[in-house]
Amino acid sequence: MSSELSHNSATNDRATARLEAFSDGIFAVAITLLALDISYPFNEHETNASLAKGLLLLWPKYFAYTNSFVTILLMWIAHHGIFKLIRHVNVQLIIANGFLMLLAVLTPFPTRVLGDYIASGAFKTAAVLYTGFFVLVSVAFITLWFVVKHERKMLHDHVSDNLVRKMTKIEFTGMFCNISITAVTAFNPWVGLTLNTAMWIYWLVKTK
Amino acid sequence: MSSELSHNSATNDRATARLEAFSDGIFAVAITLLALDISYPFNEHETNASLAKGLLLLWPKYFAYTNSFVTILLMWIAHHGIFKLIRHVNVQLIIANGFLMLLAVLTPFPTRVLGDYIASGAFKTAAVLYTGFFVLVSVAFITLWFVVKHERKMLHDHVSDNLVRKMTKIEFTGMFCNISITAVTAFNPWVGLTLNTAMWIYWLVKTK
Amino acid sequence: MSSELSHNSATNDRATARLEAFSDGIFAVAITLLALDISYPFNEHETNASLAKGLLLLWPKYFAYTNSFVTILLMWIAHHGIFKLIRHVNVQLIIANGFLMLLAVLTPFPTRVLGDYIASGAFKTAAVLYTGFFVLVSVAFITLWFVVKHERKMLHDHVSDNLVRKMTKIEFTGMFCNISITAVTAFNPWVGLTLNTAMWIYWLVKTK
Amino acid sequence: MSSELSHNSATNDRATARLEAFSDGIFAVAITLLALDISYPFNEHETNASLAKGLLLLWPKYFAYTNSFVTILLMWIAHHGIFKLIRHVNVQLIIANGFLMLLAVLTPFPTRVLGDYIASGAFKTAAVLYTGFFVLVSVAFITLWFVVKHERKMLHDHVSDNLVRKMTKIEFTGMFCNISITAVTAFNPWVGLTLNTAMWIYWLVKTK
Repeated sequence: MSSELSHNSATNDRATARLEAFSDGIFAVAITLLALDISYPFNEHETNASLAKGLLLLWPKYFAYTNSFVTILLMWIAHHGIFKLIRHVNVQLIIANGFLMLLAVLTPFPTRVLGDYIASGAFKTAAVLYTGFFVLVSVAFITLWFVVKHERKMLHDHVSDNLVRKMTKIEFTGMFCNISITAVTAFNPWVGLTLNTAMWIYWLVKTK
Repeated sequence: MSSELSHNSATNDRATARLEAFSDGIFAVAITLLALDISYPFNEHETNASLAKGLLLLWPKYFAYTNSFVTILLMWIAHHGIFKLIRHVNVQLIIANGFLMLLAVLTPFPTRVLGDYIASGAFKTAAVLYTGFFVLVSVAFITLWFVVKHERKMLHDHVSDNLVRKMTKIEFTGMFCNISITAVTAFNPWVGLTLNTAMWIYWLVKTK
Repeated sequence: MSSELSHNSATNDRATARLEAFSDGIFAVAITLLALDISYPFNEHETNASLAKGLLLLWPKYFAYTNSFVTILLMWIAHHGIFKLIRHVNVQLIIANGFLMLLAVLTPFPTRVLGDYIASGAFKTAAVLYTGFFVLVSVAFITLWFVVKHERKMLHDHVSDNLVRKMTKIEFTGMFCNISITAVTAFNPWVGLTLNTAMWIYWLVKTK
Repeated sequence: MSSELSHNSATNDRATARLEAFSDGIFAVAITLLALDISYPFNEHETNASLAKGLLLLWPKYFAYTNSFVTILLMWIAHHGIFKLIRHVNVQLIIANGFLMLLAVLTPFPTRVLGDYIASGAFKTAAVLYTGFFVLVSVAFITLWFVVKHERKMLHDHVSDNLVRKMTKIEFTGMFCNISITAVTAFNPWVGLTLNTAMWIYWLVKTK
């Protein structure tokens, strides 16, 4: 399509906007589907007291839901942070972004496993699946960032080399944290999950 | 990112638009998922008369669906009302908005509980969960509004101090109503739910 | 908010675009949720022949899915046709649009009932629910159109009185057809459903 | 509506953008719904070892999910590729696009069948359904492209005849591949599915 070169700049801006909007749509649906898993067995003989107790016993699902909701929101913020530096879209970026989306959409799955087994004998496996999943998410973010960073002209002119280095460091720190947390979870799931929650609280505060 | 200051104004407008669009996507999915809960047990020996009767017996689900649909629509209108005053987006706003979204997405859950138990012995618990849930929604709206109000420069220039005061009063009135309705529901669920419905009809008429 | 009058024109255009985008999001999710109902009981002892037969026996679901998909698509086209004439948004329009959305989102429900009972003894009830549902949709469209038509200044300047009259006629014709089809369905469901399908084929061809 | 001709150009651009956004919304929801099918029977007596084993035994679902995710992403890229050449929207295009959307939304269905029966005696039927489904998708893309190609003025001025011919060739190649793969699958499902996966890897690399 080299003969259409003069149109590249305008269509590329639109392409960036469309990819961003498509990703936002996926994030929006994925974050909403999380709530589908807060289900309970319907029992018509339920009394006020037994229903209240039953609703309280759903706490592992509320915990898993809140944790994953905040995580997808943080993924959206991070995605947003990268995309506002981008000027051009190429196929590598669409693929790397697709890999990230594949994982964002999957987030309800480890969340459901965690919510189902947090109070059972299979807690450790569920927790390792959950924390290990975010190692994959880190890998997807690093891949996305390296595709962007690789061609300097994909970035807006006002993006400084300093900012590029800072972003690279942030991505690697994230992956390192997630790997460590997964390792800790394999020994003690409660400590691992607490670190996982602590990490995103820290992230929220730091971003501020 | 202070070295990119000159670009803030344009990128902030786009950031506001993107946050708004992301929230709209979440509202759209949440409002649509409500309809998933209008389910029924499939029975292949159903006759025309028994199916008609079965469909009528689903009335608690229709009621819960309509009530929650209108509530999410009102949340969307209120969200819309706040966002059209906003010029800048900061991380606190993204977080406060995220808290509101977390609740918007959860709305199908108390709705489902209400629809399942409205005609059972656990009606009061289900109704308190439902009306109490909207106290949380009010808290989320107040938080969002205080984040916006806190930094005057986040608002468009044309927003008068008078309008800011009016909005603050509306948010607090909403929370006060929801707390009162929840208290009433704990004594008499039918009166509480009627007040809940009456409140949003009043709101619709008043907004007009 | 009368003191902000000078900003109305710009913010109103944006308000129209936002309402349109929100509605589009709801249409997109509703049309996608239709596919969720094409389910089947999993059976691990299935053979190639029995699965093939089982997939063919799902034909009522394919029929219901296709019919409802096209119907929601036509609702989207009709919605699109009305909104491209609109310049201003007011609260009445948001409410009338909300009523239409409430029904659009519900479409998977009568579709599921039809798909489940089309080959059973409860076929007539399911078919009347299905065709009767579209009477409600017509009412929603007429309401929306009357809200728009009521204040001439809500429409773009280039909209002629002739076009307004034509639109009014189209909306009433649609309702009349849907009422007739529902009445026919109460006597003979197959004839009613055939007319329902014929109507949207005619509509597609005529719009062309 | 021929009396509104002078407005056509602006409203048509907006119509193209709206159809694109609507399609993107549908793609986004469809791609997200794929993940809903990664389910498992909950068993409260699960141990760490048995849950880990159970999660590994879900491999057919991971495979089907990843394959379909990439396929929908490729459909989105191809859709994007066609729409960036389009200047005008007409009703035929809306209908052809609707047919493509109908299939995009259905993609989770053959995916679920494949994921359920890949390791069973009904594997061949499931695999033929899956690969045969993409023949239909090719037909939808060819239909869409012929609607666009049919009226030269629907395309942007900068689109060369050469590019039009190239696109036509790509669409037919895609259909030919999908038909061949389905035929192979009817004899040997593993070879067929491998070719299916190989095809989209080739496509990704070639697009690059």
